[in-house]
Amino acid sequence: MAISVENFFLDPRSDATLQSRIQQMIAQGILSGRFRRGEKLPSSRKLAAHLGVSRITVTLAYTELVASDYLTARGRSGYYVSENAPEPLPPTQSMVVEDRVDWVRAIGQRFTGGAAPEKPQDWARYRYPFIYGQTDSTLFDHANWRLCAVQALGQKDFAALTADQYDQDDPKLVEFIARHTLPRRGIIAEPAQILVTMGAQNALWLAAQVLLTQRRRAAVEDPCYPALRDVLMQSRCHMSPVPVDADGLPPDRVPDGTDVIFTTPSHQSPTSATMPLARRHALLERARAMDALIVEDDYEFEMAFLRKPSPALKSLDRDGRVIYVGSFSKSLFPGLRLGYLVGSAPFIREARALRASVLRHPPGLMQRAAAYFLSLGHYDALIRRTAHAYAERRRVMEAAMAEHGLSIAGRGAHGGSSFWMEAPDGVDTARLAARLRDNDVLIEPGQPFFARDDPPRNFYRLAYSSIPAARIPEGVARIAAAIR
Amino acid sequence: MAISVENFFLDPRSDATLQSRIQQMIAQGILSGRFRRGEKLPSSRKLAAHLGVSRITVTLAYTELVASDYLTARGRSGYYVSENAPEPLPPTQSMVVEDRVDWVRAIGQRFTGGAAPEKPQDWARYRYPFIYGQTDSTLFDHANWRLCAVQALGQKDFAALTADQYDQDDPKLVEFIARHTLPRRGIIAEPAQILVTMGAQNALWLAAQVLLTQRRRAAVEDPCYPALRDVLMQSRCHMSPVPVDADGLPPDRVPDGTDVIFTTPSHQSPTSATMPLARRHALLERARAMDALIVEDDYEFEMAFLRKPSPALKSLDRDGRVIYVGSFSKSLFPGLRLGYLVGSAPFIREARALRASVLRHPPGLMQRAAAYFLSLGHYDALIRRTAHAYAERRRVMEAAMAEHGLSIAGRGAHGGSSFWMEAPDGVDTARLAARLRDNDVLIEPGQPFFARDDPPRNFYRLAYSSIPAARIPEGVARIAAAIR
Repeated sequence: MAISVENFFLDPRSDATLQSRIQQMIAQGILSGRFRRGEKLPSSRKLAAHLGVSRITVTLAYTELVASDYLTARGRSGYYVSENAPEPLPPTQSMVVEDRVDWVRAIGQRFTGGAAPEKPQDWARYRYPFIYGQTDSTLFDHANWRLCAVQALGQKDFAALTADQYDQDDPKLVEFIARHTLPRRGIIAEPAQILVTMGAQNALWLAAQVLLTQRRRAAVEDPCYPALRDVLMQSRCHMSPVPVDADGLPPDRVPDGTDVIFTTPSHQSPTSATMPLARRHALLERARAMDALIVEDDYEFEMAFLRKPSPALKSLDRDGRVIYVGSFSKSLFPGLRLGYLVGSAPFIREARALRASVLRHPPGLMQRAAAYFLSLGHYDALIRRTAHAYAERRRVMEAAMAEHGLSIAGRGAHGGSSFWMEAPDGVDTARLAARLRDNDVLIEPGQPFFARDDPPRNFYRLAYSSIPAARIPEGVARIAAAIR
Repeated sequence: MAISVENFFLDPRSDATLQSRIQQMIAQGILSGRFRRGEKLPSSRKLAAHLGVSRITVTLAYTELVASDYLTARGRSGYYVSENAPEPLPPTQSMVVEDRVDWVRAIGQRFTGGAAPEKPQDWARYRYPFIYGQTDSTLFDHANWRLCAVQALGQKDFAALTADQYDQDDPKLVEFIARHTLPRRGIIAEPAQILVTMGAQNALWLAAQVLLTQRRRAAVEDPCYPALRDVLMQSRCHMSPVPVDADGLPPDRVPDGTDVIFTTPSHQSPTSATMPLARRHALLERARAMDALIVEDDYEFEMAFLRKPSPALKSLDRDGRVIYVGSFSKSLFPGLRLGYLVGSAPFIREARALRASVLRHPPGLMQRAAAYFLSLGHYDALIRRTAHAYAERRRVMEAAMAEHGLSIAGRGAHGGSSFWMEAPDGVDTARLAARLRDNDVLIEPGQPFFARDDPPRNFYRLAYSSIPAARIPEGVARIAAAIR
């Protein structure tokens, strides 16, 4: 029996290639049981005419499906659903499950309802996205990333791609981090002192799990990265929020009895404040006096375009007291999910064992592709290009904000990718953000960053990492108008 | 000043392309400060002759380095280190840190020392690797995986590749799992009931964290996957090991007061026992009577080549009591780090929030590439090819083991990829494995799978997922000789 050409239609919403869509359509027809084994497919000429595509596209799709044994070719007579094609799926039973589980009781630990706010997934549709931490397609070196990933997909890297590495990392990536990335921050580390993580988020989570218990105390900056507070809540430790000032975390306000201090000296998150060198030494001294550890989140050090970045806290640490968190999320892209922890070997061993239990290891392909991108110099070129664009955007932002009288509450001394902003008293920036969103502008309300019971509501963050310079003046004008 | 050609040498240990190695060598020379800004590089002819490579290779490397701003081309006069080249790294300070931290005290929670055994990373060097869970390069469809990954690296998928998805998954992958993968197991689920995880390991970990506390009890099979016991230890729950028999987990031996039952009905890990349908119903009945939940690890259901797989427990569940764990580690490859959880929406919400806090989400590229591989039919073709090879290897194994009098303690009714073996009393298979390793044979000792204080030492696992059929008879002969 021949399958009528009327059975075929291309999914107009799909953004796959035509050939892929034809393959999918036929494979899914077979899997759903609509096309049966032995049935004849329309000729490539007929199907091409019906779908309005070129005949070669249909032929290529058929050929692929023959290779995967969905179809067979019978000489000149055409293509048929193969006798070895997969069995159709069982008919969809109406498995209307009546949920008899009392989930309120069954769930032992809750993780929803944390401090981390919802963020718009569709940010790229907005014309004025002052959004933080997403990738700008006009800056990212997609072509070379692709080439590096293709190289990592090659036969030579088969084991790196496919293998279960148990608790290990890609040695090429670790070596590059040790020999090239960390020395730029003044940090000398051996592979046994480095652990590759699923971004800085995962690094902070691992550090908190290893170092904290319900009997220990963590000091965090206030305001801080909201997801860090969620991570610390999970560890059940005592948490001391320490208000930051224009120089970041003040060491003398870290309470006695603190076991672990979480800090962001390069660009305080979210105020962007840069901790001066003297304060870095003072913070190390304070930690030494209490025998506390420091977790240094250096998440954006690459974006130092105004002047050279200050040395990392870790580079000043002579005691092994600082645990360093690096990330490729800002410098490459967050969907990569790669970061790293640097610390003394006994700590890294525990973090490695925990990572293995939670997820084994970051996928081999991502690690190897990143290793190529770094070692071929594309990473440095990308950072230079990005820093150049950010410097320009920052100038345009500062001019526009001055013109419209917007008030900057914090900015990085070396660069960074955002400003911390203060609206007049009485302005609720959550409502401001909602109003602006309807006007094609995205800003980030500041309230979720604060730990206090009665957080100030008039702060907000404006990032320039994803908005073209040319759109900044109009975006800033709209914000100023909405505040008025 | 010109850089002498003597400064250049290619790393002979590298397996990168010649062009990549040349680029790396030059980039690293600049980063290390050996090559300074403005210095002239050797002509491509000279360097090619010195390195023994073709001139075009050197020219291509130079051109790439110009594009990344490491070098500049000055007309006919040649290539120079660019004035915009990255600054050399700071000189390696001899940062001899004296570790002053008492790590025994500083580490709040230990994760090393778990049950999961060390496994040989270099298994592919052995001639007779009866190793479990690694990818056979002769079976895996590397070419199409690569094509799908390249497609996922395309401009159309830029956002899927790069974006911070916060707590979300790739909708294409989730849709395929819901519409095609799960229906094959008789499971109907909506996207809100599915969470993509970093392999089954991560799925089990998330389920244990959400469902268990120190006041709850988990029943686990004995023997079982050792890493699962580590996961349950972390949740601090009470753990009841339940000895399995030839039909897997016996429902009537699950102790009263159990909150969550962890089971592997398709292929019990490690005995490969398949749970008969009647026992599946009885297990559900037992869970219902206790109001317990079941976590069903269906990690290898695709490898059913002897007869059709039994329906998943989840497909028989009318109460929403079963949480289903799927994995692409065995059917695709473990380095992919992709699996999924299926369960009621309230459970999935908590697991999703926890995953976001621990690692955000599996990398976009891995999810999108898998979605293409699945939806283009390559996955089904791969499974058919793999199942065909495994069926053959299993026949050869059974014949060889019968010939040499090796005793099979467990094997899957539908297929699987391994046998559970019993050596004579008094044989310690850990020592047997060490001896065989020196004889080019890898086997897996059985002791780490057992929860008991005094575990039997004479069991071992022989997998046929990574050893060619032709080598099996000699491998089995060596095992038999070593046992004698």
